[in-house]
Amino acid sequence: IIRAVYESYGFDALETPAIEFADALGKFLPDQDRPNEGVFAFRDDDEEWLSLRYDLTAPLARFVAENFDELPKPFRRYQVGQVFRNEKPGPGRFREFTQFDADTVGTASMLADAELCMMLCDVLERLGLGGNYVVKVNNRKILNGVLASIGAVTEAQRLTVLRAIDKLDRLGREGVRLLLGPGRKDESGDFAQGARLDQQSIDRVMAFVDAGAAKRGDVCAKFEALVGDSEDGRAGVAELRQIDAALTGAGYDDARVCFDPSVVRGLAYYTGPVIEAELTFEVRNEDGQLVRFGSVAGGGRYDDLVTRFKGVQVPATGISIGVSRLQAALAAKGLTSREDRVGPVVVLVMDRETLPSYLAIVKELRAAGIRAEVYTGTSGMKVQLKYADKRQSPIAVIEGSDERAKGLVTLKDLELGAERAKEIKDRDAWSKGADAQSTVPRGELVATVKKILAAQSSRA
Amino acid sequence: IIRAVYESYGFDALETPAIEFADALGKFLPDQDRPNEGVFAFRDDDEEWLSLRYDLTAPLARFVAENFDELPKPFRRYQVGQVFRNEKPGPGRFREFTQFDADTVGTASMLADAELCMMLCDVLERLGLGGNYVVKVNNRKILNGVLASIGAVTEAQRLTVLRAIDKLDRLGREGVRLLLGPGRKDESGDFAQGARLDQQSIDRVMAFVDAGAAKRGDVCAKFEALVGDSEDGRAGVAELRQIDAALTGAGYDDARVCFDPSVVRGLAYYTGPVIEAELTFEVRNEDGQLVRFGSVAGGGRYDDLVTRFKGVQVPATGISIGVSRLQAALAAKGLTSREDRVGPVVVLVMDRETLPSYLAIVKELRAAGIRAEVYTGTSGMKVQLKYADKRQSPIAVIEGSDERAKGLVTLKDLELGAERAKEIKDRDAWSKGADAQSTVPRGELVATVKKILAAQSSRA
Repeated sequence: IIRAVYESYGFDALETPAIEFADALGKFLPDQDRPNEGVFAFRDDDEEWLSLRYDLTAPLARFVAENFDELPKPFRRYQVGQVFRNEKPGPGRFREFTQFDADTVGTASMLADAELCMMLCDVLERLGLGGNYVVKVNNRKILNGVLASIGAVTEAQRLTVLRAIDKLDRLGREGVRLLLGPGRKDESGDFAQGARLDQQSIDRVMAFVDAGAAKRGDVCAKFEALVGDSEDGRAGVAELRQIDAALTGAGYDDARVCFDPSVVRGLAYYTGPVIEAELTFEVRNEDGQLVRFGSVAGGGRYDDLVTRFKGVQVPATGISIGVSRLQAALAAKGLTSREDRVGPVVVLVMDRETLPSYLAIVKELRAAGIRAEVYTGTSGMKVQLKYADKRQSPIAVIEGSDERAKGLVTLKDLELGAERAKEIKDRDAWSKGADAQSTVPRGELVATVKKILAAQSSRA
Repeated sequence: IIRAVYESYGFDALETPAIEFADALGKFLPDQDRPNEGVFAFRDDDEEWLSLRYDLTAPLARFVAENFDELPKPFRRYQVGQVFRNEKPGPGRFREFTQFDADTVGTASMLADAELCMMLCDVLERLGLGGNYVVKVNNRKILNGVLASIGAVTEAQRLTVLRAIDKLDRLGREGVRLLLGPGRKDESGDFAQGARLDQQSIDRVMAFVDAGAAKRGDVCAKFEALVGDSEDGRAGVAELRQIDAALTGAGYDDARVCFDPSVVRGLAYYTGPVIEAELTFEVRNEDGQLVRFGSVAGGGRYDDLVTRFKGVQVPATGISIGVSRLQAALAAKGLTSREDRVGPVVVLVMDRETLPSYLAIVKELRAAGIRAEVYTGTSGMKVQLKYADKRQSPIAVIEGSDERAKGLVTLKDLELGAERAKEIKDRDAWSKGADAQSTVPRGELVATVKKILAAQSSRA
């Protein structure tokens, strides 16, 4: 579904290698406390440092720089692939995971950013998550403007402020205030250095963080007041107004895409609008508490990333969907498709000598678009039926010598069979699932299988 | 198409990590001259050696061993993913490439092997390569039998013989004879150690290599004579006869699946039947010579690979399709789909103020299943049309203020336009592609785009 939506918007597939020269990727990961870490790196035979990609954006910048003259501009590509982070794994946090990205490179137009927001909405709605998500947009230029209005702020302070705000969800307002000020000791006793802003400056940053409101236009008005006459800040607000205009023009209202100052994104390379798609329904976390499902996608504008190679500025913007987290969300909401859960029809092998007859059956079923397999093991009927159950097979096909002699075939509805077996335990009924099994003429095999599958679907 | 065929046969998707402990993968790569090489490896923070997977089979064995009790038996999975080889790249030889595997683990039945051959045929035919391929099958046990009939042969000699036969295509009969005997100096002057068999033994191995013939049954008869009373050899022939019976029963004739003693496959872990899918049409190589396209998939039985972890034998068999090579073959035969080549419909931006109108157009087109995008750059009409050409866009949609006022929209057929432009050069015609452009009521936009796309398809 992600691929179909991206393609419908005109993005084309690109594949770049999983390994890049370490220099080409740069160091843009959120965890500044451990520079050089976060990336799997090793040396090749020529003693050059190679890295496994930590995202799909840094390699795209390298690719664009290398092929700049041949590419259409804007260059619109999507890419799906594994990325690698050399950090401690935890719940929902893996060292290898799948990202599904779309990027538009070579235009400064906010239409490109607005379009990515629309595309995220379309993906989530096509997946059945309508009403359960919000795409949040912010602009780093606005925070830069707020910081400029405070006075002298170093680049290191700016990044510390960004990362402090990024932790609002986890640490709460007080935790963020500490990180904006002197610093904060976490539960493990580790001390995180703060940005060392004074109280008045902290208040100003927190006023920015609190500027979220229902209407995109209202948020822009609040931002305007906060950035004063900072050029950067005013540019950021103007960009958000352009994004708002495109979204409104295309019919994406504030309930689907809102402006939220608490969104900053951890990666260091963003320069303008930043985007985050959040799922709003609640799930239980490992401690049994109900929490919002949270972020499943993010992105933003990175106008300077290609500049590292090219010398000239190549404006660019992109989004990245976290496939595993999105898949977990679909499972939590019961939105995975039935076809993803149900196994193939299993044709039992009653008699090795008549294998061609079983092979003919699966061939017919496959030709009718039904997944089917002949049991390829060497065990007897009882084990074969257990195998079919374990495969979540919907139907077992049985053609013994008696049946074949009469031109018949027996179909066991394994889902109905499992239900009946449960009922029997409850009611101690005497008729053991008689309706879960039927014997029909061999010529009616495919039609009967289709009928049973349709009945199972409608019961599901 | 590969995924659809694998799923129709009842295989389920599995994803394993790209990184494994080096020990878990073992060393089974073909190039024995450089042990420890061929694999990208590095140490993690605990000083453990990690490797990037060099195929999808060794990680599957690790996965099966680790989850043995929970898996259905036989366990049938498919997997697509990147694999990595730390070797010199060359034409059609990459250090990172995509494999698309299917494996059946936990059964010694030759039905599983036969089914993989059928599945390869089905994939290649669904891709349009019918009549242009042959699936070749051999059995390592038969060569073992031939070697047993020669007399004492060490494991190292056995592997050298296997690899010598594997190079028949490249080195010819004389080159193989040298590798079976004293060894061979290649063009670069490097000397490859031979298996040091005597002349009589070499003749016997070459007689085996020459035992290919049109009918599977005839090949089995020749094999039977060659293996004498070697137990291993006789078992190998019996297995091929079972595969033949299943293939014949399912209607896969000798033209599609043949038995060929020259197929050995380079990987060290195969224990029984080995499989190779070869494309038989000719292409020009880098030197301009016409050569057979060659192998696009391979596989075989590896009954001992899981044993390394489990202590008990877990019989298993699988195939692997080389996706890049297959893609190159489809391109060479003009079999890539038109949708893979044609870009999106591009809606030109004539007037920034009326963006919502352009966004409405792409929305309508997408809802009708047509790829479409609004131009997201900031350049004028001429550059926008060049962009559409570079994107291989089939149609440009133009709605200027005049057209909008009259409720009209202009569609440029870019394929026809390009043809007319060529004709004009040839014939110096005065009417510059008038039929390549049409102005229609806005309400007929989607229908007209569909009509133009259909006309383009039928001309293609």
